[in-house]
Amino acid sequence: MLIVQKYGGTSVGTTERIHAVADRVARTVKDGSTVAIVVSAMAHTTDELVSLAEAMTKRPSLRELDALLSTGEQVSAALLAMALMERGIPARSFTGRQAGIQTEPVFGSARVASIDTKVLNEALSDGVVPVITGFQGYAGDDVTTLGRGGSDTTAVAIAAVLKADRCDIFTDVNGVYTTDPRLVSKARKLQMVSYDEMLELANLGAQVLHPRAVENAKRHQVPLVVRSSFTEEEGTYVTETSNLEQTSVVTGIAFEREVARVAVIGVSLQKHGLATVFGTLAREGVNVDVIVQSVVQTVDADVSFTVREGDADATLQLMRRMQEELGYRHLVLETELAKVSIVGAGMISNPGVAARMFEVLAEVGIEIKMVSTSEIKVSCIIAAADMEKAVKSLHQAFLESDGTVDA
Amino acid sequence: MLIVQKYGGTSVGTTERIHAVADRVARTVKDGSTVAIVVSAMAHTTDELVSLAEAMTKRPSLRELDALLSTGEQVSAALLAMALMERGIPARSFTGRQAGIQTEPVFGSARVASIDTKVLNEALSDGVVPVITGFQGYAGDDVTTLGRGGSDTTAVAIAAVLKADRCDIFTDVNGVYTTDPRLVSKARKLQMVSYDEMLELANLGAQVLHPRAVENAKRHQVPLVVRSSFTEEEGTYVTETSNLEQTSVVTGIAFEREVARVAVIGVSLQKHGLATVFGTLAREGVNVDVIVQSVVQTVDADVSFTVREGDADATLQLMRRMQEELGYRHLVLETELAKVSIVGAGMISNPGVAARMFEVLAEVGIEIKMVSTSEIKVSCIIAAADMEKAVKSLHQAFLESDGTVDA
Repeated sequence: MLIVQKYGGTSVGTTERIHAVADRVARTVKDGSTVAIVVSAMAHTTDELVSLAEAMTKRPSLRELDALLSTGEQVSAALLAMALMERGIPARSFTGRQAGIQTEPVFGSARVASIDTKVLNEALSDGVVPVITGFQGYAGDDVTTLGRGGSDTTAVAIAAVLKADRCDIFTDVNGVYTTDPRLVSKARKLQMVSYDEMLELANLGAQVLHPRAVENAKRHQVPLVVRSSFTEEEGTYVTETSNLEQTSVVTGIAFEREVARVAVIGVSLQKHGLATVFGTLAREGVNVDVIVQSVVQTVDADVSFTVREGDADATLQLMRRMQEELGYRHLVLETELAKVSIVGAGMISNPGVAARMFEVLAEVGIEIKMVSTSEIKVSCIIAAADMEKAVKSLHQAFLESDGTVDA
Repeated sequence: MLIVQKYGGTSVGTTERIHAVADRVARTVKDGSTVAIVVSAMAHTTDELVSLAEAMTKRPSLRELDALLSTGEQVSAALLAMALMERGIPARSFTGRQAGIQTEPVFGSARVASIDTKVLNEALSDGVVPVITGFQGYAGDDVTTLGRGGSDTTAVAIAAVLKADRCDIFTDVNGVYTTDPRLVSKARKLQMVSYDEMLELANLGAQVLHPRAVENAKRHQVPLVVRSSFTEEEGTYVTETSNLEQTSVVTGIAFEREVARVAVIGVSLQKHGLATVFGTLAREGVNVDVIVQSVVQTVDADVSFTVREGDADATLQLMRRMQEELGYRHLVLETELAKVSIVGAGMISNPGVAARMFEVLAEVGIEIKMVSTSEIKVSCIIAAADMEKAVKSLHQAFLESDGTVDA
């Protein structure tokens, strides 16, 4: 069995923890598995390197920033390789370049283009555990980094090209939960979750597993296990289907704070206004989430969309500058909102789930301001003040009963 | 004019100092020079990385240690490149590999095998200042380091292959002195010193310029300038001949503490004992300095040699184990000794200099226990307690008069 194990920054945050990781890898090897390791930089290292760069310049060259940041994983990889050898396990550290991880020629957020598996396969067949730096690759002569979630992405890509049986993502939580345990004490760890559900639960689990890595895992059908490096608990399996959970229609309750809604009243449909609005927002880096359009008359429409509260001012200014071009009548901004979503692959075959969600929210007196649905998710925009109550009620209704919902 | 500038660990020890280095480089560029930079790791970084490695294992893999340590210069090179760009100076950081610095396939103390100047020359002709990591290169797929004095060696090697007009070694002292100013207040900075003199003065200037770099500079006839990165003072020129100083026969007074003398009495000359003694000591890593042999009878000899005081016990044990093989009669160890040397290229044509040295030491009542001479150096082994007095007297006699010695 070939297992790729990825250890995040907290898991290798101190020399003691690197020793603990080495112990775990040694056990896995002694259990007869072949292992390849991907490591993040030791916790805080990346932040420290970023502040060094900030002390140099407000706008660092992205090439130099990548050259700088990539040293973080080189340190943790070399240290873990040493710790493994100390335990009698042959090991060798590999930078992104040494591991053959070629990326697009883009700095700061490169995508993996290809991986030449020659040296890694040689190491594995020599009985050497490769310890690969996450988050980085190379393009031409340059070092590139993969951006946020980069080490997860590296691990999944390595698992895909090595045709690993499994990719273990070791982090500081035990797995993926039905919702945030800090909000709902009865939240429970999921045994399995599908790639699609994991993606929809992303904002619950962003610190657990980066959506980009999940997408790649889905594309290459790499089974993932999200688990803690601090305990021996089994984690959460992330695979194509979450069979074991299919008794429950809803897999988890996701939520997001600090949502703002912009309502654009009377957008002229003749002016291709919608494409202009969202095209411009995208170019300006404003991430638009839920979009609802309602045609009021035949020539114009009311369009509402949500953005992060922090982006609200910039969005309004942008919209005002474009008022003539867009031909809308006026703008309404509403802040202090939140988004609550129920997620579950089982919804596809259970059409009453959305109705049950609205019912639950109505029962506890929560007004729904916007609704958005996908095949495996229903999201409601509500007042931020109602969010906690909404999540608790929905968790109780969908995840604390016998698992079936009478719609 | 093409200048290679090397900045040591103290010179880039903080972000403020890196800014100061960037200011200096910017001035040099604006003065019309073409510049290539070699940097050490920020002061303390290497020590911190070494202690991380020590927390992993007592005997780290040398490959992994090199992979680990090489990150130090990558950080300082990227930061300096950023700081230069912030000043409108196009710059790019280069790791040893990126700069094409190929070494022997040896970890920890590799020698530079060759430098492919293609990328560096491209950068220079594009008007880009290359900021090259000192101390490191590559061999095959691996990162290698050059060992102690490695960044000086890198700078000299880069200056040689780029055919630079000069190689500036920026450090935390103003230049090379006639002797240690902490010992002799009248010690003065030398304007020029020859490569050979610099090598003989090495133990005065070891923290200033590594002997290995001096040897390479001599081999490739690279003019060096040792100067401080904290002042605008001119430093000391190190070139083939120290013309300007030829009025003075003696260039500097070197000294070394913690010397021990081992006297091997009655070594059989028939047993090839001498070769065995020094061959064995070399293999055991004991650095033998001054050697004096006196044939007492026709069949055996008395041999004295000096080692570092810290190596004395190991040396004695080794000698005792080999007593039968060597066929000597007995051993005498003397510790708490010191070595004082006068160094100067002018000695070659001034045969009375050694005699004058003995005279000066005799005048102040210092007993000479051993003497060793080379073409440009005379060394005396004396009691450690006499060392300071010896250095002061010799400095006064040879370097504080009108510069000529009446032998």
